[in-house]
Amino acid sequence: MFHVGRMVADGVPYPDVAEAVERIATPDDWFAFWADRGDRYEVLGGEALELGNRLSAGEWLWLACLCVHYAQFMLFDEPDRRERGQRRKVDLYHRAAPFLRPPAARVEIPCGSHTIPGFLRLPPAAPPGGAPCVVLIGGVESTKEESYLFENLCLARGLATFAFDGPGQGEMFFQTPLRPDFERYTAAVVDHLTRTPELDPTRIGVLGRSLGGYYALRSAAYDRRLKACAAWGYFHDFDEFESIHPLTQRGLAYIAGCDDVAEAAPHVRRLFDLGDVAAEVSVPTLLLNGREDPLFSVEQMTRVERALVNATKDVVLVPGGDHCCHNMAQVVRPRLADWLAAKLGGRR
Amino acid sequence: MFHVGRMVADGVPYPDVAEAVERIATPDDWFAFWADRGDRYEVLGGEALELGNRLSAGEWLWLACLCVHYAQFMLFDEPDRRERGQRRKVDLYHRAAPFLRPPAARVEIPCGSHTIPGFLRLPPAAPPGGAPCVVLIGGVESTKEESYLFENLCLARGLATFAFDGPGQGEMFFQTPLRPDFERYTAAVVDHLTRTPELDPTRIGVLGRSLGGYYALRSAAYDRRLKACAAWGYFHDFDEFESIHPLTQRGLAYIAGCDDVAEAAPHVRRLFDLGDVAAEVSVPTLLLNGREDPLFSVEQMTRVERALVNATKDVVLVPGGDHCCHNMAQVVRPRLADWLAAKLGGRR
Repeated sequence: MFHVGRMVADGVPYPDVAEAVERIATPDDWFAFWADRGDRYEVLGGEALELGNRLSAGEWLWLACLCVHYAQFMLFDEPDRRERGQRRKVDLYHRAAPFLRPPAARVEIPCGSHTIPGFLRLPPAAPPGGAPCVVLIGGVESTKEESYLFENLCLARGLATFAFDGPGQGEMFFQTPLRPDFERYTAAVVDHLTRTPELDPTRIGVLGRSLGGYYALRSAAYDRRLKACAAWGYFHDFDEFESIHPLTQRGLAYIAGCDDVAEAAPHVRRLFDLGDVAAEVSVPTLLLNGREDPLFSVEQMTRVERALVNATKDVVLVPGGDHCCHNMAQVVRPRLADWLAAKLGGRR
Repeated sequence: MFHVGRMVADGVPYPDVAEAVERIATPDDWFAFWADRGDRYEVLGGEALELGNRLSAGEWLWLACLCVHYAQFMLFDEPDRRERGQRRKVDLYHRAAPFLRPPAARVEIPCGSHTIPGFLRLPPAAPPGGAPCVVLIGGVESTKEESYLFENLCLARGLATFAFDGPGQGEMFFQTPLRPDFERYTAAVVDHLTRTPELDPTRIGVLGRSLGGYYALRSAAYDRRLKACAAWGYFHDFDEFESIHPLTQRGLAYIAGCDDVAEAAPHVRRLFDLGDVAAEVSVPTLLLNGREDPLFSVEQMTRVERALVNATKDVVLVPGGDHCCHNMAQVVRPRLADWLAAKLGGRR
């Protein structure tokens, strides 16, 4: 579970990760260690708030949230603890949100019988026509609370951000598992954003990470209001389901609402296939990933590249890069934000 | 030389540190590795600039600067390579400066026959009476280029920052080694800041790190225009010179301009003694350090605490904390910035 590169890049303090590497021996230790870190940062956040140090309060409450997130992120075999972790994470982010700079405003968007939870953050000085906005989509176990630092990169470039949980993700999992129509949820989000006065409805883009890269491409295929699409990690389908890492198989089974991997395999294969919609993507599209990604094979990535026959593509397949290039975040993440700023008219 | 906690907290990307730990076997490797990282980030910065991505250009050029800084930071026995590294670091920061947010403006302040180099950064929205400002002082081998991330914490709290190199530090070393009157250089800096229209001359504070903690206390003792003093790491004198880490002894000898440690010992002992001025410190003073600091003993720190008879003291001696609490930067650094914001009327 030591996704050290990813965890540090997402904001988990290095001293905590170093201590974890030293002290954790079992999956049980893992949960206990990170839940405890969450408690500690929560206490710091509460103390800061009492002292009137709102900025630190926001950062520490968010660190608490992030630690609790990572406590549960791979607990696919312990639904109770996982749910407890998810709920606590959501609560901690909710408490941090008003003190973040810029603050994160919770928005709940109806979509059929479901309600999509998301957070909107606006850049400090929005232009008269409204700010451009990036819709952020997570993956198997990454959720809207995890993108805070990446949001900051976008916000510094004049881009508003809207991170949400879709089917199977974060708190949305308790409403619905994985579905074949993720794009319907993105469209509901875009509906909302086009009616938000602080935003420019003609400059909305989408970025998805890992499994979210697939969702971003599908969303861009269906929704012409999305003017740029960044797939930060991407794949064509799950034909190779059986050869991916067992924990990821387990994760996919979990978010698909299946009892086990055997039941999940044919279901997940049916759910994911870019073939039918790839030609519909017609906007500037960034395909970025590590060439050494152990999860999405180069063959899978090449298939996506070939299938996007109508998009203006920038393909960045980084030698030495792992899954989503988490092992070189300091190079790749600013580049993603720069690309979005260039396509959506942000500040560079 | 693996000051991992400090390096990551100062901004060296974790993936680089992880690779360094894996690959570096000798001090020679150390210099080559970090100089090479500096080259790589410099290239990235140049490319970003050509593409018009000014924000990324600034960050990457600054990362280049930081890597080159750490390449040379302990090279006390190789003056040529050290000087080359120092000069290159200064050049890289100079190139990054206009693209940082907010930008860093180089200022050169006359002080006797010397010229003090420093960088002023102003918070985005300064109040009508001018912004409060924190003067930042480095230590044996930490310099004005290293405080960028800490400056960001101050700036987010509405505090302007002015980081400079004093005698023996960074590029100032080539003008003068260690001197007994560091406070004269701080006073010249304060002269300049009180005449800077964007700043409020009645709200200037000082923070010093490691050896700089000592300088900050001395400066506050001599200059009543400094309204708050934070010693981030502090000690009373070098009575225990022979028992401190050999590399630090070597570093002190180097910045004192001595040929070897034997020559340096009596000289350094004479140079550092808070006894004569401690009672003059009368402003709110924060003494913060780790209880497990291997460099400054608890006895030394207690002596400082006792000697500051006229200051309003906040003493934070953190259990488990190492030198300057670099092993818990995520907790301690925001706290330092909050304290300064509280004392100088920043934004919290």
